[in-house]
Formats: sequence, C-alpha cells, structure tokens
Amino acid sequence: MKAAIIGIGLIGGSFALALKEKGVTEEVLGIDNSTFNLEKALALKLIDKVLSLDEAVAEADLIVLATPVNSIPTLAVKILNRISDRQIVMDMGSTKQELCEMISQHPRRGRFVATHPMWGTEYSGPEAAVHGAFAGRTAVVCEPERSDADALETIEAIYAAIGMPLLTMGAEEHDTHTAYISHISHITSFALALTVLEKEREESHIFDLAGGGFESTVRLAKSSPDTWLPIFMQNKYNVLDVLREHIHQLQIFRKMLENDDLLGLRASMEKANTIRKIID
Amino acid sequence: MKAAIIGIGLIGGSFALALKEKGVTEEVLGIDNSTFNLEKALALKLIDKVLSLDEAVAEADLIVLATPVNSIPTLAVKILNRISDRQIVMDMGSTKQELCEMISQHPRRGRFVATHPMWGTEYSGPEAAVHGAFAGRTAVVCEPERSDADALETIEAIYAAIGMPLLTMGAEEHDTHTAYISHISHITSFALALTVLEKEREESHIFDLAGGGFESTVRLAKSSPDTWLPIFMQNKYNVLDVLREHIHQLQIFRKMLENDDLLGLRASMEKANTIRKIID
Repeated sequence: MKAAIIGIGLIGGSFALALKEKGVTEEVLGIDNSTFNLEKALALKLIDKVLSLDEAVAEADLIVLATPVNSIPTLAVKILNRISDRQIVMDMGSTKQELCEMISQHPRRGRFVATHPMWGTEYSGPEAAVHGAFAGRTAVVCEPERSDADALETIEAIYAAIGMPLLTMGAEEHDTHTAYISHISHITSFALALTVLEKEREESHIFDLAGGGFESTVRLAKSSPDTWLPIFMQNKYNVLDVLREHIHQLQIFRKMLENDDLLGLRASMEKANTIRKIID
Repeated sequence: MKAAIIGIGLIGGSFALALKEKGVTEEVLGIDNSTFNLEKALALKLIDKVLSLDEAVAEADLIVLATPVNSIPTLAVKILNRISDRQIVMDMGSTKQELCEMISQHPRRGRFVATHPMWGTEYSGPEAAVHGAFAGRTAVVCEPERSDADALETIEAIYAAIGMPLLTMGAEEHDTHTAYISHISHITSFALALTVLEKEREESHIFDLAGGGFESTVRLAKSSPDTWLPIFMQNKYNVLDVLREHIHQLQIFRKMLENDDLLGLRASMEKANTIRKIID
C-alpha cells in the first residue's frame, strides 16, 4: 500500500514511522506547506518522496490528513472530489463535528474514515515525530456507519497493527468528550504558564525551584498555537462550557480558602482524589 | 550519626533511604503517629527502630521533621526545648514563615536548620518512599544565618551527598516563590479533576480517552489532603494571591474565545510558550 501523508509534523510524522515499522506501507509520500518541514521529513526518513497534493492524491491508496484542524474539512472535500472509489481518505484531527458535517453529503463520503488517535506531545514539527508513538492509546473512529465497509476495515486493521484499541462514537459526542479530557488541560496549562510568568518575575527561581509537579501541570503550555488555536475555535462551545465550569471550581476553592473552610476544602480535595480510580 | 525521622511517609521515608544509601547514618529511628505506618516503615527497611518522640530526641544526633506542615512549628519548639547544644534539628516542610517565626526567639534557634527539598510525588505514606528521590532537585535552606555554623555545615553536607544543589533565601521569600511554583499547580490539578468529574459523567470515557496530557495536568489531584491542606492554609495569602491571578488569566482566555479574538488568543499562547526557555 502507498500512503500519502498531508501535514508531516508530530502526528503525521509519527504515523508515517508507525506505518513503516508495521509494514503497512511500501512507500510514504509527503505533502506539506513547508518546504523546510518536507526536507526535514526526508532527512529523518519519515517520508520516501515529496509530491504535490494533486500528484499524491493520484498515486496513493491511502490519503492521511494530519494538518491543523482548521484546514482538514476543506482538504477532505477537495480530496474526496478527486479520488476514485478504491482509494481511502482518513484524518487524525482532534475535532470532528465541523469535518463530519462538511463531508456529510459528499457522494464519496463512504471513502472517508474520520479518526482521532488519542496521542500527542507538547512538541511539534517533523523532528518531534517518535517511534512507537500511538501504541496502547485509544483511537476514536467517528460515524463508522458512514464509511464503506472496506475502507473502515482497512483503517481498523492499521490502528490494530500499531497497537491502538478502537472506540466508535458520533462526531458531536467526540467533541464533547475531548473538550473535557484533552482541550481543557491545554487551556489550564497555558493559563498556568501565564500566571507564573506574571507573578514570578525572577525567572531563575522558576528554574531552580520548579519540581516535577510544576513541570507536569505546565508542560502543555509549550504546545503549538498553530495546532491548538484551531482546535479551541472549532470546539468553541464545548471548550467554553468546560472552561466556565473550571473557573467556577477554582472560585469555590478560593472562597473556601478565604473563609478558612477546612471541612469544605478537605471534602473537595477528597472528591478530587477519586480521579485516582480512573487514571491510576 | 544517628538520625530520628519524625513522620515516616513519602518525604521522611525517602530521606531515610537516601541517608542510608549515602552512608550518612548508621541507624535511623522512626517516630510516627501511626503504628500502621511504623510497621510498614520497619518492614520496608526505611527505619531500623521505632521509638517514642522523647526516647528518639534523647538518642539522636540529627532530628528530622517530615510531618505535615501544621505540626512542624509546635514540634520544632518542643524538640528545641529538649535537645542539647550538640544535636541538630531540621525540617523538610513546604512552608517556612510560620515555622521560622515560631522558633525565632528560641535560645537554641541555632541548632535548627529550616529546609525544603523541592521534590515530591502525588503519593503518600511509607510505601510511597523511593530510592534516589531527591537527586538533581534544589534544596532550599531558609535563614541560614540563624543556624549555628556546625549545624548548617552538617545539613549542607547531607544535601550535597544526596545530590541536591542548595539555594538560600528568607522564609517570606520562600513562601512567596513556592506558592507560584508549586502550591498553585496542586490547586489547578485539584480543580481540574473536580471539573472533569463534574462534566464527564461517563467515567469510562475518561479512562478510554484520557491521553498523556490529561494525566499530566491532573495527576497532582491524587495528592493527600493531609499534606496539602495545611500547606494551603499556612501559605494562605500567597496562595490566594496567585490563585486570583490564575482565575483572572482563565477569564481573559475565556473572553477572547467568546469574542473570537484570534490575535489575542495567539499572542497569549505564544507568551505562554516562553515557559519553554525556563523548564526545558
């Protein structure tokens, strides 16, 4: 199988490595807006060949969209306009509603498989691609009933080969859950970094004193705005909903601390502790 | 040297292991309110012998306070009341102002070294103690000029032996910086866990979908209220100050998202990205 990967950064690059390692593809074609990224991706052997979008779409059996989510819906439509009934298109984006609506009435909707492998790091670009990236994490497939059986089976087999258990759900459901489980974590990290940069004028103290806890809660603040701003915008209503709840929780905590409400604080912390049973 | 460790949990237990591994002590005496913890600490070979507080204070060359911070000032005074001029007392607590004020006029203040090794995990109790825990992190010594030269040298040599570079500062300065660099991270994690538990009623989805980013931002929410509630209370004014700033930052972010302020959001995220140069 020949795969074309559009957007050869952290996600696309790591996926290219996984496809090669599992013997899914004989050749990986790379497409990217940035010549600099394409050259890096070639040098790092993430891709075998650089092609234009049209050339790649003509040649590839599988076309993978791994660009920032603001460009995925448009690219999806344009590629569905061009492919044959034997080719398969998939995406790896963090939002799904906008995409699934845009392609919903396309006569070749069945050739598209909308997916979201739940993996990432705070780094970006082809040099951030890593071996064995996705293994053990869940891959979400949205609206599997809208994909042709053969296309769905192929993508399921690929995710199985790279060690990802599958979960299927609707696009709306996906965007709600990812706002809770992923997008809000990024916002709290960005805001925590801004808070500490605002309060802690002595940067050497951040460096000297920051322990593992601080690094852990703030590391997502290193994430690329090119990736994350489009995610927040496309999932705006869910993100705002959970962000309002989060501000509310912080305000409750602040009030309890102001009022020396030891019982209330302890009860809140003990309730928060129950996250243990879910993520341990 | 014979060391008595009061409070044989995550910090005291890990310190006991470090003292033994570096050959600093021939014998570690354990003191704890919980018989259960003492038995565990003996079984795990964190300590060699269980003694009462009075027995341990009579016998030990070095007395280490590693209890929750609400009991450290009182313990410090009581122990200073009982020791000779050759014994040394140190603490490992996360707050320093209350402690340093309580012992400031004590005639044996010089025998006390107020320290804070910047290390911890979200786990607690003797079974959470780990080998090689502190190496590479900074240890803060507060008000070193208030400690006798020999006491200070001994503690400095111990931290050097376990691989911790030292930083000295005043107690007030310490509590301000740790609010920014450590305490606020714990509050954001507790609040994030509460937010997600509130919004995400389908716990299996948290489990299936949560990637590394979520785990990383929320893991401190597993921390013990017995440890952290006293820290928040003792450092209340600094913690409230930084918590107010953090809520303010989240509100700014929320407003920009509500108003589709792409330029503002991007500028904020890019500013947050500069945390890279400090913690990378």
